[in-house]
Amino acid sequence: MYTGTLFIISAPSGAGKSSLIRAYLQQKDHHPAKVSISHTTRDPRPGEQQGEHYYFVDHQQFESLISKQAFVEYANVFDHYYGTSKSEIEQSLAQGINVFLDIDWQGAEQVRAKMPLAKSIFILPPSLDELENRLIKRGQDNADVIKKRMLKAQAEISHYNEYDYVIINDDFASSISALNAIIATASLEQPKQAIIHKQLINQLLQINK
Amino acid sequence: MYTGTLFIISAPSGAGKSSLIRAYLQQKDHHPAKVSISHTTRDPRPGEQQGEHYYFVDHQQFESLISKQAFVEYANVFDHYYGTSKSEIEQSLAQGINVFLDIDWQGAEQVRAKMPLAKSIFILPPSLDELENRLIKRGQDNADVIKKRMLKAQAEISHYNEYDYVIINDDFASSISALNAIIATASLEQPKQAIIHKQLINQLLQINK
Repeated sequence: MYTGTLFIISAPSGAGKSSLIRAYLQQKDHHPAKVSISHTTRDPRPGEQQGEHYYFVDHQQFESLISKQAFVEYANVFDHYYGTSKSEIEQSLAQGINVFLDIDWQGAEQVRAKMPLAKSIFILPPSLDELENRLIKRGQDNADVIKKRMLKAQAEISHYNEYDYVIINDDFASSISALNAIIATASLEQPKQAIIHKQLINQLLQINK
Repeated sequence: MYTGTLFIISAPSGAGKSSLIRAYLQQKDHHPAKVSISHTTRDPRPGEQQGEHYYFVDHQQFESLISKQAFVEYANVFDHYYGTSKSEIEQSLAQGINVFLDIDWQGAEQVRAKMPLAKSIFILPPSLDELENRLIKRGQDNADVIKKRMLKAQAEISHYNEYDYVIINDDFASSISALNAIIATASLEQPKQAIIHKQLINQLLQINK
């Protein structure tokens, strides 16, 4: 049992997941937390830093890590590997630091199997129209690309019921409150409190005061 | 599955449980909630109203309710029965109203067996000295009575690890925040959200938009 909690956060593209995580971390006085940094075999893009955006490794290194069961989840997308290192997560959790994993339903499935105490959160958009608007606003994609993104979003959404919690991201402030509540509640779970407040609890239970 | 949640709240006498529940309910915009009203065979005290503080019934009525399995928990204390009606709780939960059960660890054990989806919260005082101070401040009890109360409190505290959540009631505002977080989080659980937002989710999942 670690005093930190692993939070799996998934959402269809356009639901506002990244903005929510960013806003959470920008709050003062939030519980210590970090977003897990993935390993990848793809090349760094301009501005991407080793160990800050990704751990950039080559194919051989990645496959060696796979064989050592070093990942809680990994995937091969367009011939590039992406994965999440177990030891990095566990080090943070052991220090009482919450870790956010920003992954899709397939990654979530792998992580649940390896880290059953993880809490998983699915972010839903408030409507299909709003989702489409957000995808259109994002950029230069043509109608065909938008349509493909919508279908992909719906495929992701169809897995919402595999998650512990669902946040409907309609009003941003309410969504942040919801995220805050879920994260605060995880720290209040009895087994974690028993570790954090061991000294107090031992004192309270001493019979011969 | 109900959209309301049953919260079992226990604490040793002096930990501040009643003040916390009262403060929670006095907040504006809290999720609809009520404290469960118990049945009892003891006589009303001055000012106590039927159906407001208790449902006052006679021994025969109470035992008839026991035989009908009408209670999620009951106890006999100094020859008076006290019990919590299952149907009253379930009616509220079905309407999406959260229900607070202010009971001890023995009641909590009975309720968990009958309503496994209940969330249980244990409130701890910040120290034995503080607990003693609060018991002394309360009233006119002599040293012997205080000592007995302290032993009873410690017996109750020894069951803290049977609860889902633990709140250390050191700073009152933090304790209220913690209670708010736990209650808000229960509403965000996927099966409840699936019921509350059924229409939205069906719309999001329609493939042929």
